[in-house]
Amino acid sequence: MTLSSMSFNPSGLSTAEVEASELLYGGLAGDIRLLVDVAIRTRVGADRIAAARDLVRQAEQILAEDAPPEPAGIHFNTEGRSWNWGNAVVGVRNAIAPPVVLRWSDDGAVRSEVDLGAAYEGPPGCVHGGVSALMLDHIMGETASAAHTRLIVTGTLTLRYLRPLPLGRVHMQAQITNEDDRKVTVTAHLGCEAYGDEPAVEATGLFIVPRWAREGSVSGSLD
Amino acid sequence: MTLSSMSFNPSGLSTAEVEASELLYGGLAGDIRLLVDVAIRTRVGADRIAAARDLVRQAEQILAEDAPPEPAGIHFNTEGRSWNWGNAVVGVRNAIAPPVVLRWSDDGAVRSEVDLGAAYEGPPGCVHGGVSALMLDHIMGETASAAHTRLIVTGTLTLRYLRPLPLGRVHMQAQITNEDDRKVTVTAHLGCEAYGDEPAVEATGLFIVPRWAREGSVSGSLD
Repeated sequence: MTLSSMSFNPSGLSTAEVEASELLYGGLAGDIRLLVDVAIRTRVGADRIAAARDLVRQAEQILAEDAPPEPAGIHFNTEGRSWNWGNAVVGVRNAIAPPVVLRWSDDGAVRSEVDLGAAYEGPPGCVHGGVSALMLDHIMGETASAAHTRLIVTGTLTLRYLRPLPLGRVHMQAQITNEDDRKVTVTAHLGCEAYGDEPAVEATGLFIVPRWAREGSVSGSLD
Repeated sequence: MTLSSMSFNPSGLSTAEVEASELLYGGLAGDIRLLVDVAIRTRVGADRIAAARDLVRQAEQILAEDAPPEPAGIHFNTEGRSWNWGNAVVGVRNAIAPPVVLRWSDDGAVRSEVDLGAAYEGPPGCVHGGVSALMLDHIMGETASAAHTRLIVTGTLTLRYLRPLPLGRVHMQAQITNEDDRKVTVTAHLGCEAYGDEPAVEATGLFIVPRWAREGSVSGSLD
């Protein structure tokens, strides 16, 4: 399998239509996120579980009435808007994604705060180390794309786990620290308010601008 | 926040009761996984989305009738069985987890095959690089725990991304390559059938046996 600029789908949707669609299907994903969370925590008995499963299956059948098998992919329109609704970190239609919302700052740093509940657990009461890696990989890739002005892929990612990160609100930040031709180095950290300036996880990543993307018309992170 | 052997909860449940519970609540999580997937792919209109959301909310309310706020945690019983139902990678009650099922081999390697659908997307049609990191971190941590005979935490994790990994069935393998007092080095790779022996992602991890765990009675990966 190869990725190329053909992997991105031009769309006839206007930005207004994209935003209406995000509101509609994003609302559904939001409800499913609550369901995922309570399904981990519930203690109701077998009869109530059977009733809940029946409702979940009915909902699934309604949505399956018209559902092509393909994953969501990445799309863009002529207004410069792009969207990746199925993305595992930021996809607004993906109930697995928290979803993370990124903020680009004038200083070049990218930041985000996100609430991680019971579904992101690894050690007891803590964020799974791999979930920290998932979120850091994503924010670092988006950072390397320089606010979506170039297309990049992850080359190498190194994570240092310094202390356990409790479930709840976490914050992360990433910035470019070096650029050399097609290689972009990004550093990042992930923490929480209780730790102040001390990060729970630090990361360094080497991101690459693929040869095929240098002359291409598309841009963004391929995470 | 600190982790200690007190982070693990002794349980009065028998192994038979644990397995019955996994069947009951795991079935619910399985249904929700299908819902998460189709909610990304569906094209049904606003009226059908409203109907599906109503069903999802009803299911959520049933499960919330008795649902303590705490995450699932890690529990163990006197028969040597332990369970982490909310784990983001292997938790059978967590619809975010594929869930990954690990196989311990006589040669010391740990292997797993897993089907990754639309909810694990990053690049178009491909597994999110961070999802690869999430799964590798988990299998490597379990490997370092030497089949749950000691307790470990992740110190450093390095991932090398060699080629895009298509969504679908993927396989991974991890093995211990060095041990030095409290430090355990694990290597791993992730690939798919189309690539044969060529991995899509390679990883090296340094895992640590925490001081408090050396004389403790608990064991396992803290991922």
